[in-house]
Amino acid sequence: MDAERLQRTRTAMGKAGLDTLVLKLSENVVMLSGYWPMNGFSYLIFPLDKDPILIAPVPEEYLANEGWVKDIRAFKWGLVDSGNPFESIARLLKQASLELKLTNKSVGYEASFEFIATPYVAAEPAVYSEFSRSMLQDAFGRNLVDATGLIHKLRLYKTPQEVERLQTVNDIALMGLQAFFENVVPGRSEIEVASAVEARIMQNGTGYKNVKVARAWASVMSGARAVSAYKPHLLSTQRRLEEGDVALLELATVADGWWSDLTRTRAAGRARPADLDKWQVVVAAQKAAIETLRPGVLSSEVDRAARDLINKNGLGAYFIHHTGHGLGLRYHEPEPFLHPEVNTPLEKDMLTTVEPGIYIDGWGGMRCEDNVLVTADGYKVLSEFSRQLEG
Amino acid sequence: MDAERLQRTRTAMGKAGLDTLVLKLSENVVMLSGYWPMNGFSYLIFPLDKDPILIAPVPEEYLANEGWVKDIRAFKWGLVDSGNPFESIARLLKQASLELKLTNKSVGYEASFEFIATPYVAAEPAVYSEFSRSMLQDAFGRNLVDATGLIHKLRLYKTPQEVERLQTVNDIALMGLQAFFENVVPGRSEIEVASAVEARIMQNGTGYKNVKVARAWASVMSGARAVSAYKPHLLSTQRRLEEGDVALLELATVADGWWSDLTRTRAAGRARPADLDKWQVVVAAQKAAIETLRPGVLSSEVDRAARDLINKNGLGAYFIHHTGHGLGLRYHEPEPFLHPEVNTPLEKDMLTTVEPGIYIDGWGGMRCEDNVLVTADGYKVLSEFSRQLEG
Repeated sequence: MDAERLQRTRTAMGKAGLDTLVLKLSENVVMLSGYWPMNGFSYLIFPLDKDPILIAPVPEEYLANEGWVKDIRAFKWGLVDSGNPFESIARLLKQASLELKLTNKSVGYEASFEFIATPYVAAEPAVYSEFSRSMLQDAFGRNLVDATGLIHKLRLYKTPQEVERLQTVNDIALMGLQAFFENVVPGRSEIEVASAVEARIMQNGTGYKNVKVARAWASVMSGARAVSAYKPHLLSTQRRLEEGDVALLELATVADGWWSDLTRTRAAGRARPADLDKWQVVVAAQKAAIETLRPGVLSSEVDRAARDLINKNGLGAYFIHHTGHGLGLRYHEPEPFLHPEVNTPLEKDMLTTVEPGIYIDGWGGMRCEDNVLVTADGYKVLSEFSRQLEG
Repeated sequence: MDAERLQRTRTAMGKAGLDTLVLKLSENVVMLSGYWPMNGFSYLIFPLDKDPILIAPVPEEYLANEGWVKDIRAFKWGLVDSGNPFESIARLLKQASLELKLTNKSVGYEASFEFIATPYVAAEPAVYSEFSRSMLQDAFGRNLVDATGLIHKLRLYKTPQEVERLQTVNDIALMGLQAFFENVVPGRSEIEVASAVEARIMQNGTGYKNVKVARAWASVMSGARAVSAYKPHLLSTQRRLEEGDVALLELATVADGWWSDLTRTRAAGRARPADLDKWQVVVAAQKAAIETLRPGVLSSEVDRAARDLINKNGLGAYFIHHTGHGLGLRYHEPEPFLHPEVNTPLEKDMLTTVEPGIYIDGWGGMRCEDNVLVTADGYKVLSEFSRQLEG
């Protein structure tokens, strides 16, 4: 159990005057229960000063039991005699509200998540609709409060246990980078490289440090097409790599609800000298940005370190995006945001990507992206892996 | 352009008294525009009697241009000078509302989609939140109407063009079944088989009949574990197949926004005689159900055909779920629902899965699932492929 996470959450709820949180999104349920809902329609009722209650479908009960919540109430789903599962959920929500005396109390819920982390059933995630919101109103009364900001703020500061999980997903993502390096060879197609990366992560990540679900989404763009790596079309195609072509991999990886976001660029065969020159600039810019990371540095200062270096090398016009963004329980989180105009100081326990890149129409694109934790006295790269363009 | 789809939609809107639809979910935008939003935060404004307007991020503009809507308005997103994209979307929505004179008219929107089809960026789908709903209110006034039921009803009847797309995604899914048959061999692990199926679909489906995006989610459960194929845990593991083991594949496939949902069961090496006997019952039950399909047959009658056959063979207690469900723009759609208690007549142009199965604790599970269209005089199987347990 991540006692520190639960304590931090209760402190924030107290300050915000919330009597309970009612969470449905898998990304938030896993944070406070250790159970990653596979379909995304479980509910966690997390009161300020009572024991939490978890409502989960029967098929996921065994997973819920491996989490931290003792009071689990399961509803039938998917069987011929299940009845209407939504009626079961509504009844269980109402019952929990009465038992915990939460009716008409201040209930925080996930009102404004415009993007969600996919649950395991990524083909068809469960989401919040007006229907689910009205179930909450029926159960808890009309005093629903948007807790989206509070939840994102909590997620911004990783606990030591969470850092371990983020290290694990990065370890797994590096298996994918290894497959990428092995597969970027002349003759291979973008889509073949992308699927080799995904397969490696599924095959070697599943079971690694007891991870149940390891999954990745890889996009590979090559040659002049690599410019689309930040347009960002992100579509892998049947284009085959030719000798010297540069391929860019954008890689999202999830392990039991925790996310990594990495990029490498690699040449098929021998790299072209002009490409090596540009790549050195990208890698140096990333290094410069990473080395600024410490508590107190402003987002804009980190961005500036990368941008200055690329400017100095005459490529500034081609570095068209921000230098990094937060992540952890999602592929992208709103903070930190390493952008020239964001003057927010970084703090200990924040996780950010550092990902400068250059994109030149008719030539292609290059980016180097790692996941870096801000520590008490500096930083720790969770995704240390070769940054060689050729090998 | 799918003129029949647009005409059917306008007829339904007229009957429902809707002045416009405003759609954001990729699954509905693709139906009415031919453009499948990759991230899921494009908006289609589809008025009853004026030309539609599409609001899309700049990186997706080239995709939007390949669709049917002429009036496309793009907003900057993801670049260092993009500003706040949500402010751009809000402004474009308001401007469209004014131009089309839709303010305070009856505006249908996707209020109650509790499940969504993932867009291409499956790691992090955009969804409807209170935030996006308030953008709609600001732009169109408070006369927002829940059009979820109307949209699902429209989706229930496929047009001829849509049937072509559904045939295409099934063609691609069959490439995955072929990979499954090739990979179910002693010594192979569940996760290896699953990732081989996904890789084959990505590699051979991309570009097939001009499909831009082909992607699959495969789950493989084997031996006694296969019982979890309908608990439904659906987790592939490192378990290795042994001679005679039965493996069950659950396979979701998407091609440019159109979905297939298939299952096959296959033995590694020679099947055990008792397994062959049970499999014959499952396949016969599926055949019996499929052969009932025609306009006018009740959902319960289709279910009954499968269930009677399994009952007659003494296995009724193990067929624990319904016989099939609708699909098309999502992996699962609410109708038809082939269940003993649903007495709704099927009609021409409906698409359903037919998927009887048996699951016995300690032994394992078997299911055979195909996608079948109801035609004027019967049915058409879109996923014709071997149903042999061994080969």
